[in-house]
Amino acid sequence: MVRAAVAGASGYAGGEILRLLLGHPEVEIGAVTAASSAGQPLGAIHPNLAPLADRTITDTTLETLAGHDVVFLALPHGHSASIAEQLPDDVVVIDCGADFRLTDEAAWAAFYDTPYAGSWAYGLPELAVGATGKQRDALRGTRRIAVPGCYPTATTLALAPGYAHHLLAEHDVVVVAASGTSGAGKSLKPHLLGSEVMGAMSPYGVGGVHRHTPEIEQNLSGIAGDDVRVSFTPTLAPMPRGILATCTAPTWDTFTPAEVREAWVDTYADEPFVHVLPEGQWPSTASVLGSNTVQLQVTLDERVGRVVAVAAVDNLTKGTAGAAVQCLNLALDLPETTGLPIAGVAP
Amino acid sequence: MVRAAVAGASGYAGGEILRLLLGHPEVEIGAVTAASSAGQPLGAIHPNLAPLADRTITDTTLETLAGHDVVFLALPHGHSASIAEQLPDDVVVIDCGADFRLTDEAAWAAFYDTPYAGSWAYGLPELAVGATGKQRDALRGTRRIAVPGCYPTATTLALAPGYAHHLLAEHDVVVVAASGTSGAGKSLKPHLLGSEVMGAMSPYGVGGVHRHTPEIEQNLSGIAGDDVRVSFTPTLAPMPRGILATCTAPTWDTFTPAEVREAWVDTYADEPFVHVLPEGQWPSTASVLGSNTVQLQVTLDERVGRVVAVAAVDNLTKGTAGAAVQCLNLALDLPETTGLPIAGVAP
Amino acid sequence: MVRAAVAGASGYAGGEILRLLLGHPEVEIGAVTAASSAGQPLGAIHPNLAPLADRTITDTTLETLAGHDVVFLALPHGHSASIAEQLPDDVVVIDCGADFRLTDEAAWAAFYDTPYAGSWAYGLPELAVGATGKQRDALRGTRRIAVPGCYPTATTLALAPGYAHHLLAEHDVVVVAASGTSGAGKSLKPHLLGSEVMGAMSPYGVGGVHRHTPEIEQNLSGIAGDDVRVSFTPTLAPMPRGILATCTAPTWDTFTPAEVREAWVDTYADEPFVHVLPEGQWPSTASVLGSNTVQLQVTLDERVGRVVAVAAVDNLTKGTAGAAVQCLNLALDLPETTGLPIAGVAP
Amino acid sequence: MVRAAVAGASGYAGGEILRLLLGHPEVEIGAVTAASSAGQPLGAIHPNLAPLADRTITDTTLETLAGHDVVFLALPHGHSASIAEQLPDDVVVIDCGADFRLTDEAAWAAFYDTPYAGSWAYGLPELAVGATGKQRDALRGTRRIAVPGCYPTATTLALAPGYAHHLLAEHDVVVVAASGTSGAGKSLKPHLLGSEVMGAMSPYGVGGVHRHTPEIEQNLSGIAGDDVRVSFTPTLAPMPRGILATCTAPTWDTFTPAEVREAWVDTYADEPFVHVLPEGQWPSTASVLGSNTVQLQVTLDERVGRVVAVAAVDNLTKGTAGAAVQCLNLALDLPETTGLPIAGVAP
Repeated sequence: MVRAAVAGASGYAGGEILRLLLGHPEVEIGAVTAASSAGQPLGAIHPNLAPLADRTITDTTLETLAGHDVVFLALPHGHSASIAEQLPDDVVVIDCGADFRLTDEAAWAAFYDTPYAGSWAYGLPELAVGATGKQRDALRGTRRIAVPGCYPTATTLALAPGYAHHLLAEHDVVVVAASGTSGAGKSLKPHLLGSEVMGAMSPYGVGGVHRHTPEIEQNLSGIAGDDVRVSFTPTLAPMPRGILATCTAPTWDTFTPAEVREAWVDTYADEPFVHVLPEGQWPSTASVLGSNTVQLQVTLDERVGRVVAVAAVDNLTKGTAGAAVQCLNLALDLPETTGLPIAGVAP
Repeated sequence: MVRAAVAGASGYAGGEILRLLLGHPEVEIGAVTAASSAGQPLGAIHPNLAPLADRTITDTTLETLAGHDVVFLALPHGHSASIAEQLPDDVVVIDCGADFRLTDEAAWAAFYDTPYAGSWAYGLPELAVGATGKQRDALRGTRRIAVPGCYPTATTLALAPGYAHHLLAEHDVVVVAASGTSGAGKSLKPHLLGSEVMGAMSPYGVGGVHRHTPEIEQNLSGIAGDDVRVSFTPTLAPMPRGILATCTAPTWDTFTPAEVREAWVDTYADEPFVHVLPEGQWPSTASVLGSNTVQLQVTLDERVGRVVAVAAVDNLTKGTAGAAVQCLNLALDLPETTGLPIAGVAP
Repeated sequence: MVRAAVAGASGYAGGEILRLLLGHPEVEIGAVTAASSAGQPLGAIHPNLAPLADRTITDTTLETLAGHDVVFLALPHGHSASIAEQLPDDVVVIDCGADFRLTDEAAWAAFYDTPYAGSWAYGLPELAVGATGKQRDALRGTRRIAVPGCYPTATTLALAPGYAHHLLAEHDVVVVAASGTSGAGKSLKPHLLGSEVMGAMSPYGVGGVHRHTPEIEQNLSGIAGDDVRVSFTPTLAPMPRGILATCTAPTWDTFTPAEVREAWVDTYADEPFVHVLPEGQWPSTASVLGSNTVQLQVTLDERVGRVVAVAAVDNLTKGTAGAAVQCLNLALDLPETTGLPIAGVAP
Repeated sequence: MVRAAVAGASGYAGGEILRLLLGHPEVEIGAVTAASSAGQPLGAIHPNLAPLADRTITDTTLETLAGHDVVFLALPHGHSASIAEQLPDDVVVIDCGADFRLTDEAAWAAFYDTPYAGSWAYGLPELAVGATGKQRDALRGTRRIAVPGCYPTATTLALAPGYAHHLLAEHDVVVVAASGTSGAGKSLKPHLLGSEVMGAMSPYGVGGVHRHTPEIEQNLSGIAGDDVRVSFTPTLAPMPRGILATCTAPTWDTFTPAEVREAWVDTYADEPFVHVLPEGQWPSTASVLGSNTVQLQVTLDERVGRVVAVAAVDNLTKGTAGAAVQCLNLALDLPETTGLPIAGVAP
């Protein structure tokens, strides 16, 4: 049994970490900290977390975080570094923010306004590394892990097989992704009001300015062994959770539909959380709600010489908190699926 | 480890039973049967149940159901009796349909068009029985259990403390409940299309004709020791899951708000799945999504001399499949909460 | 052609008034005023109002409101009186707030925290007055009109025929109404975020404390000629617009279903905006979206001796802005339906 | 005053035509015809069309369609030709189906399974023709008009300025569009049930097989003067109406953001229904609900050398029925905006 603290517990990511930890047999929930809501009962912030309703949220300080084996950071970007560097080296620190995801300082500087803090082990266990490896090998026993962004998780897993199997070109990659509104967090902005959101599909961060762009490119370039450039457009969809990433890239040569399909099936054959659906069945965000599962499908558009790969994830689960718990399992050498739901809550 | 079959697995209730059983440590999933979708892979019907995607749905017959320790029946009403009577006595049979809920043949005949089949132990463990008892005592070790209807679960638990503590009158009880569309099942009717449902609140079964009416009255009358009559109006709400039952009844004498509150708090103090919220916080269906939890709140409207009690449940979980698993736990003498989520998937 | 100003144009009610005025052949839109958003282009606040996108919102002052034939007030309660008393007597002033709705100062004091300002002609043209009259007679040519609240509109029209035709008792009236989130306005509160609202049915203002309660009672008591007391519970539903009011009251004697139905059909036979649906068809908020129409249905629950009447309206149209324009038409002696859509935007 | 018949009145497109015609000052609604629902009152099919509730739907035959000045066809593809060829030449026939949209028989044969019927004047008045012309010139006084598909309307208007102003390349054009569920019509399929749709983003017709693909390519190629090839992926979004088309294409040379913006602003400067939003404001489907308006925005992603243009339309209004009425206005030489709402119903 390990004892885990959650810093940033009042947000959606923090709440989802707590929900998952409630079902984790090897974790005991310790401090639950936040900034502005400190002093309130957790039940006033997350009424869904009934067993924790009477817990009091405390301030996020070194004192409140002390004495835990694991600390989850679910803070706005730029806040993790100062805390992380003061935590003992043997504490497992899992950062759900962006602070330690990028390995290239210039890429960081081009998209973020806080100082570059370096990079940690990248918490996407299913990421292809080299010809046959996976990123999970780099996560076992680690003590500092950067959980990927939600869009990069969906997009990278969707396109990775095409680069791992040398099918896709590096140019003219286009990703259009729809996200549920929880991806925008809990900030009180008029366009996030329910009255505005329902019935509304709308893009944001258009034109290559969304901060997940360099992370997607870093992942795909790493597999391709060459610079992949991505046109990435996120959209907000009228649902609380879920990401549907529609990803398309030109093939660099002529391939058959069977070659394409085989690359995807082969890459994820042994993955417990990544499901390449049977031919003809396409992913739906509704199918993965609340689960750590990625649904994938791929096809070849021979008319235009492009592969179209589509991924569905729950942005708060596999997209954030589920990935964090999966990484914890690897850090602690537990079975990777411990405490993580695979079946989505549907309909 | 017990082996469980699910008959009627292609419907929403059947799918939810399977989702919960996937997380149940003492149950192995056996036959998965249905009528019209027999022969299809389960993944084509319930794409959310990734670990069962390759299972083939078989016909619902005595042969396919044989060899199981537990059989869940999630069939249209009128279909359970013929199957149940042919299953061995030592098999635990849990019926999610209406067939065995009503103890009064006349009440059955007034609302249903199939022959009366008798009644089984009523699967609402939290139901008050006598001065201090609960219905769970009647469920331990039982082999035949009738799972309550979703509206009766919400409504009964909302009003029961008022009758158990002799606060409420038997007349002019009014219940207006909103249900997510999964409560209407998967039947292909135009008014259930997404295009029609979104943005739509609409009543149905108005005027005392909904089949859950006699079940609600049976439950409340049982506690009150006298005939309770209920005006019950269900409405369809633009959400996939959830029931919000707004229940109001006159007090028969003058009571204080504190007396009212104490009755509710007292009744459910030790219940793992029933949460009377702190004063001022009201239930929301969003908070209980996918969980076996009931959120409750109550107040006294002194202007008009009525108690208003509101319950939120997930119609498919505590309202159907979660209750079924909870009953299974009691039937098998397992801890009552085994395999059942208490925290809802929110936001 | 009259010239109309809209004060409080940045809110949902103000926006809806502007939308309707854009389609009104006899009205020219003049000043568009607000408080905190003054100086901004209207298109930044209401991107749906394309033809007015370049209009600049000005401050709400006597100067900006001067020189108009009509002034619509869509302000928070308590703000209308000070402005209204300084506007010339011959200007038509139509208040969408609560300030001038209640005729009983004690009722106002029990529910509101600002000084009582008196009452204006009540803007519900279809309200029964005496044996055969309607409230519209009191609105023709008037210069000061108080537009009803959205819940009172739906509830009053639903139950009025039962009191006008002496069918209903004054006690144990119960109303449970579901409202779209725009009814809660544009205030930036966490529970109104899209992430929280979707999938959520939740009550608020429970126990007789909602401010529309005395207005509903005033209307029904006026028709009944005696004090009607109402248990009123509003709920928030996952849709942007719409109210579904489920209203039930005991009959004071035994009546037949035909007598009940005839009362409702008869009351609204000549009303352009109130449609009593054919038997068996129930109202839906989706059917009246964006229109000034009220859908009604009624039935008698003979088991419990209660009438159940259900009304659907668009809270922003017939519930607020449409009623305001309808009142304007009466004030100006225009045909009552001028510029008002009867067909809802569906699906 | 002209008299119009609507064939296929029971579907969503037919219902929307009727809704718009109710507000059209120059049109009288005549026959309302359909196939399977013939004999029913229109109010049972489209309860939102209150003023037409008592109209009886008749069979779609030459007899029922005779005696009208205008016939709207809202039929499944393949059904329009046989009717159209038997209607008198001087009747205005406006086809909302696909039958007469494609000018290339081979393109038709590649995507449709019924015989090629030829092509009619293409009903997209805002389509650029040559250096300075618009398609509306080809529609004035015409008697046979093919209304564009909903996706082609949004996509073509989004990208047309880039081809009209020689900014965009013909290759690697990618369109990912989200549609409300009414775009899938009223067919009773399980995946269109409300329970399945809410919370669900899911693609369909992936890989270049959707029938709107050749229509999009025909439009863009016509402007470009060369073959444009498009990767088109439609997705279903959890909303009843609306299309958000995210369209991206490489520039063929280096341009400045100002050059790009100017092309879009310039193309639509005088269009009543196409609004290029102020810089930084992006389209939302919620803003155009029920209106004939197209919201557009464009940006240049200089990192990857691609233009991203996004359009929002209501698929049933500007995407179908509004375009049909706009075409009628042109056919009859009425002001083009007659009877068509520009302001959307929001929130």
